[in-house]
Amino acid sequence: MYAVIMAGGRGTRFWPLSREAKPKQLISFTGQKTLLQETVDRIEPLVPLRKILIITGAAHAEEVIGQFPDLPKENVIIEPMGRNTAPCIGLAACHLKKKDPDAIMIVLPADHTITDHASFTDTLKTASETAQQGNYLVTIGIRPSAPETGYGYIEAGLPLAPGNRGTILKVASFREKPDFETARSFLERGTFYWNSGMFIWKVSSILEALERELPELYHELQAIEPSLGTLGEEKAVKKAYERICPVSIDYGVMEKAGNVILIPGDFGWNDLGSWDALMDFSPKDANGNVFRGTIINIDSTGSLIFAKEKPVAAVGVSNLIVVETEDAILVMRKGRSQDVKKAVDVLEKNNLKELL
Amino acid sequence: MYAVIMAGGRGTRFWPLSREAKPKQLISFTGQKTLLQETVDRIEPLVPLRKILIITGAAHAEEVIGQFPDLPKENVIIEPMGRNTAPCIGLAACHLKKKDPDAIMIVLPADHTITDHASFTDTLKTASETAQQGNYLVTIGIRPSAPETGYGYIEAGLPLAPGNRGTILKVASFREKPDFETARSFLERGTFYWNSGMFIWKVSSILEALERELPELYHELQAIEPSLGTLGEEKAVKKAYERICPVSIDYGVMEKAGNVILIPGDFGWNDLGSWDALMDFSPKDANGNVFRGTIINIDSTGSLIFAKEKPVAAVGVSNLIVVETEDAILVMRKGRSQDVKKAVDVLEKNNLKELL
Repeated sequence: MYAVIMAGGRGTRFWPLSREAKPKQLISFTGQKTLLQETVDRIEPLVPLRKILIITGAAHAEEVIGQFPDLPKENVIIEPMGRNTAPCIGLAACHLKKKDPDAIMIVLPADHTITDHASFTDTLKTASETAQQGNYLVTIGIRPSAPETGYGYIEAGLPLAPGNRGTILKVASFREKPDFETARSFLERGTFYWNSGMFIWKVSSILEALERELPELYHELQAIEPSLGTLGEEKAVKKAYERICPVSIDYGVMEKAGNVILIPGDFGWNDLGSWDALMDFSPKDANGNVFRGTIINIDSTGSLIFAKEKPVAAVGVSNLIVVETEDAILVMRKGRSQDVKKAVDVLEKNNLKELL
Repeated sequence: MYAVIMAGGRGTRFWPLSREAKPKQLISFTGQKTLLQETVDRIEPLVPLRKILIITGAAHAEEVIGQFPDLPKENVIIEPMGRNTAPCIGLAACHLKKKDPDAIMIVLPADHTITDHASFTDTLKTASETAQQGNYLVTIGIRPSAPETGYGYIEAGLPLAPGNRGTILKVASFREKPDFETARSFLERGTFYWNSGMFIWKVSSILEALERELPELYHELQAIEPSLGTLGEEKAVKKAYERICPVSIDYGVMEKAGNVILIPGDFGWNDLGSWDALMDFSPKDANGNVFRGTIINIDSTGSLIFAKEKPVAAVGVSNLIVVETEDAILVMRKGRSQDVKKAVDVLEKNNLKELL
């Protein structure tokens, strides 16, 4: 059993904490471990470090290697450019095929948080046992707790086998991010799950699915295969990636495949999609605040304040998000997370690229 | 004619921009000249630099001298400790008596702003001509434009001479900071003026008033007099100041004296008593913002943001005051200026004295 952690994100949604050189998965929101380090920690009870691969972009490989002094360097797979998740997963599958063609492959995003680690481990155990038993593409569906419009949904069908008490389900359909009314109806119907982006399958199952659903990508991956582990690898991967069309594993494979299985998960999952999501997810003090660093609070409520270098005195503010980093400060009304991108765009236009 | 600029304030109301080592009058709110430098500039058309004295505390003398390379060093008078305005003015009067016992003395606070310099000069001319004509204690009363509760008021009486069209008035009474209803009635009645803290008198007139109203202070000042300009000056001043009771010139002299004259002034005066006052007074952009430094604004309104070292992205905020300095950040709801002091108190209690 191998784990593949996808650490290729480049999001600016956590600016100024996340940057081009340090995207979300490579930063820490707690002041301790980074999201990527937490992801590795979570899977280690199930998969030893030497069987964990991290796949990331060239710009972040050095930082990733630095965050895992004990990880074999060859376990960091470098994509020369981002081509979305299907090529990323395909490339990782080729690496694993060479190591062990019969391996079970657990694919995990690097930038989510999970509170109940034991339940997470149990769910993945069920998922890998299921994947072992057949040619299945297994995904974890998160039992929704609110009508979230920021997530994709998966509609579950009948149980895979009668009598498994709804823990292993066939998949009826994939649904893109819904509007609020649709999300509410999903929640009421009880058969819809959040798409977590976690997958479990045999290496042979995913490669077969890629061959069937994305033959052009499969063809490019086959061209890479003989070079893996040789001096020609980097060049071969680059050549293939220049031709590969970006496509997500959801759109390219999961939505079309007939052998998709859903394992419901309920372990305090959050994809931390924005400052607002981080704030909703974080433990708060009696006044609803989330503070990090030296904060002098006079009557402030419902605010997230991260101070890195300079103490922040917060006097009578409410529902604010304030983030100070080494070289920039964000002051934002709660609920405006989606507009961080606008500020980043302005920086880009004004030649303040060193702040990106 | 001499000018005495009182630059002894130690206010923390503009923390984190004002500090113990750099109180309000020694900082710049425009990014250019400090309030003290602006005060000197304003009076120079009337009084040459060599006849301008600046009186300040020992902790700030070096900074004051540094801000005026062309000012004779002996024009900076140092108080060993703060004893409010009556001793400060008395000490300056003793210095002037030595230079010229017949001098006219213009006393100005160092930390106010004025927009109409020509009108200010005209008003001071009228004031000094009036002071020249008799044993008067002349003060400038600001024609109020709003029912301000943060200022003291002076009630004017009859004109000093019939036919001077209300430009030189006797004083009926001094009033402490009123509540809102009282301030409104003051405004309606039209005979009340804001107490500006600016005074114009003969050196002999103020010394006579001090002798009459504050005989103990006068006695201490007399003990200092022979030492002025000698090696024993510092020691004599220190010895006297250790015994002198703190008292304001308003309470100690002006409210009791019968020879007080008010010259109405209307020259865009503001005492900049707080961040809120600064914001009200400052020119604003189309969205009601006051920005200094690199600010990336996405839909923010009615906010004052001063960035010194780090660019500030303001996303969807309104009615905020944000001040970044070299070592601290204030984030405050507009209208909460009075609570800056609470934040400073917390810093003091938590051994963050380097931030004071």
